[in-house]
Amino acid sequence: MGKREKPKAANLGEEIVAGNGLIHRRALLRGTLFSAVIAAATAGSAQADDRIGENAPEWMKTPGRPFSAYGTPSHWQEKVQRIFTIAPGRAGTGVSRTPLHSMEGTITPSGLHFERHHNGVPDIDPGKHELFIHGLVKRPLAFSLDALMRYPMQTQTRFIECSGNSGIFSQAQAAQVTAGELNGLLSCSEWTGVKLSTLLAEAGVTKGAKWVIAEGADAAAMSRSIPLEKCMDDAMVALYQNGEAIRPEQGFPMRLLLPGFEGNMNVKWLRRLNLTDAPVDARDETSHYTELMPGGKARQFMFLQGPKSAILKPSFGMTIEGPGLYEISGLAWSGAGRVSKVEVSADGGKTWAVAALSEPILSKALTRFRMPWRWDGRPCTLMSRATDEAGDTQPTRAGWLAQYAPGQGYHFNGIQNWGIEADGTVKNVYA
Amino acid sequence: MGKREKPKAANLGEEIVAGNGLIHRRALLRGTLFSAVIAAATAGSAQADDRIGENAPEWMKTPGRPFSAYGTPSHWQEKVQRIFTIAPGRAGTGVSRTPLHSMEGTITPSGLHFERHHNGVPDIDPGKHELFIHGLVKRPLAFSLDALMRYPMQTQTRFIECSGNSGIFSQAQAAQVTAGELNGLLSCSEWTGVKLSTLLAEAGVTKGAKWVIAEGADAAAMSRSIPLEKCMDDAMVALYQNGEAIRPEQGFPMRLLLPGFEGNMNVKWLRRLNLTDAPVDARDETSHYTELMPGGKARQFMFLQGPKSAILKPSFGMTIEGPGLYEISGLAWSGAGRVSKVEVSADGGKTWAVAALSEPILSKALTRFRMPWRWDGRPCTLMSRATDEAGDTQPTRAGWLAQYAPGQGYHFNGIQNWGIEADGTVKNVYA
Repeated sequence: MGKREKPKAANLGEEIVAGNGLIHRRALLRGTLFSAVIAAATAGSAQADDRIGENAPEWMKTPGRPFSAYGTPSHWQEKVQRIFTIAPGRAGTGVSRTPLHSMEGTITPSGLHFERHHNGVPDIDPGKHELFIHGLVKRPLAFSLDALMRYPMQTQTRFIECSGNSGIFSQAQAAQVTAGELNGLLSCSEWTGVKLSTLLAEAGVTKGAKWVIAEGADAAAMSRSIPLEKCMDDAMVALYQNGEAIRPEQGFPMRLLLPGFEGNMNVKWLRRLNLTDAPVDARDETSHYTELMPGGKARQFMFLQGPKSAILKPSFGMTIEGPGLYEISGLAWSGAGRVSKVEVSADGGKTWAVAALSEPILSKALTRFRMPWRWDGRPCTLMSRATDEAGDTQPTRAGWLAQYAPGQGYHFNGIQNWGIEADGTVKNVYA
Repeated sequence: MGKREKPKAANLGEEIVAGNGLIHRRALLRGTLFSAVIAAATAGSAQADDRIGENAPEWMKTPGRPFSAYGTPSHWQEKVQRIFTIAPGRAGTGVSRTPLHSMEGTITPSGLHFERHHNGVPDIDPGKHELFIHGLVKRPLAFSLDALMRYPMQTQTRFIECSGNSGIFSQAQAAQVTAGELNGLLSCSEWTGVKLSTLLAEAGVTKGAKWVIAEGADAAAMSRSIPLEKCMDDAMVALYQNGEAIRPEQGFPMRLLLPGFEGNMNVKWLRRLNLTDAPVDARDETSHYTELMPGGKARQFMFLQGPKSAILKPSFGMTIEGPGLYEISGLAWSGAGRVSKVEVSADGGKTWAVAALSEPILSKALTRFRMPWRWDGRPCTLMSRATDEAGDTQPTRAGWLAQYAPGQGYHFNGIQNWGIEADGTVKNVYA
């Protein structure tokens, strides 16, 4: 996080808003506060003219690389990859995570969108794929991709989060891994497609229909039961992701998008919507994606992803290079709608200050928060907590754990903490 | 655009808002209007159960592809590429265009962002790159990438458009090429970086400074003169593009972002900002990027990209499959701020109707518009025109041409037209 600077007098007109060096977010707008303080982070006075002509960098002396049909990241960034571990003999089952700690802004480039496959990524011929709507409808229908392409479309920027995301926080010991490994079953894209309610109206929903069983065209025939009410609300059959055709790992040629609902329900490679009067108790809503309660019973059909946040800068793997002024930043989100507030603490939760949120703040989308902070060089604990427009706030980890039986790891949305040590290293700690 | 449907009675409760079948945009919200009308676009009644088990598609019968570190588009989409033509012996000079006609939504995936290079794409070692701020400043400064990374950041979704975009419309004959070839020197990304005003304040701008000469670290040392006022307003040193490190073709490890200003000024591979009292008359603001006026003089320093729009669906290369209901959609944008209105005409400009705009409508970003349309099967001309929040509206092509000498091709923002023929083919026509 930059070069070492000498400690400076703390009082430079900073408006302290919470303990241990949190500064009012309006300092981010003014800019000049930072600039005066971080001056030492620059390499000092420069004589740019010395680097011109003979002394210009080598890459200015020869023509560069020509045009390319489809661009890729710089080779200097080759370590910024999805993070995956695969159990032996299970090539197609598991997850890969988005490296959130190496990223900025709120959009996830599609190449880094997290993956959760139950039997690999199918190679679907889009000319042969069909979407069926059947069951309790007046007119069972089959849609080719071409047919769907003719419908009116809508565009929504929305996050998708696996309900197993951050489940590692239910372990007794705090894992010393990056923020991407902790929270990277989380991505955010601009999705474009056809409103599901349009297609259901066309099929004609009959009176007894209450659930929609969505099935994917993968070798696991991944299936989930979805309340009809959600399908008639903001659900979409998504055909495009970040401007181009949806990627194979995210469901090419089409996926179900259920904004705010757990990732697994956003069925990829969507091939069937079967309207029924009851849920189907599919494998992936009984053997998985249920929550074990303290009494030993499991709770089923917890759809909504709760309010949540994570500080990404600083985070595990980074080193703070000495006392001085820094920006704390991270992501916040909620399945219930917009993030209304993110608070940050630099004293382990004793005091909290309100962070700046990057506009536009979109419903059920990732929201970037930023907070200026003067670190005094002493050990401390950084925390963030999000509140959504429904008024819900993240619980503490202890409060979250108390709801469930030991080992339950779905839907973790407790407050997370980074412990900053005197040498500037960052550790995952349980407060 | 979908399968053929039989002509139907025209009056199905559609609220006609302009000539030749334009329907009120609220039909897009209701959905049911479309669904009742487009029913024939589906393959008809389906027996989904017939496709289960033995009859399931082949890709459900074997495990799919495993995880990947960095995803790429489906091989079925391999024709969706940047469009480039390179003159012999000039590998690093020219353009590649974004295939807008194959895309949806508003974000451009970074792999498809248009390119304009003057001497190829340099391979810059981010550990050795420095940004210098010098000239009329109190403290000349050099910033390493690490130093910049420590500064407070901001995120802005903004378009970049080459001022040469759509210059082909100044030709006497309407070119029969795709919308991407016509208008694809245009892309939109979520950019994250450091406000330039923060860095300039740190250097301390001296009283006589009025211009900033920005120079890139490519082999062309691409340079432009920028008014200091813009640099102190919404300019940014961009380090991230769509969530990840900025791509090499867009300036890795850093570029200047001047929202709304012609693309060329958003200097890539940014290495120097030299504050001066006057513009420098760099090669790329004298030999290029100037506008030839009717009297023979050239106008220099036309920075702002005017209000503009293009219909992408339908567009050249597509065929409308018979009379019926369709969605017209496209993109609108303005360098002056938000798009306030897009109007569509289906009768060659005799009558106009207001299109729906996808939220959020962001300043200096691409905005998607959508318009329901019932085509009666007869030849007609589709047009769109954008108005921005400054109150400016696109001129007609003839009105635009009248401002300049023949052959001037920069900053074309005239109204564009698609001629629909009786067989459903789409042609570029001058109204």
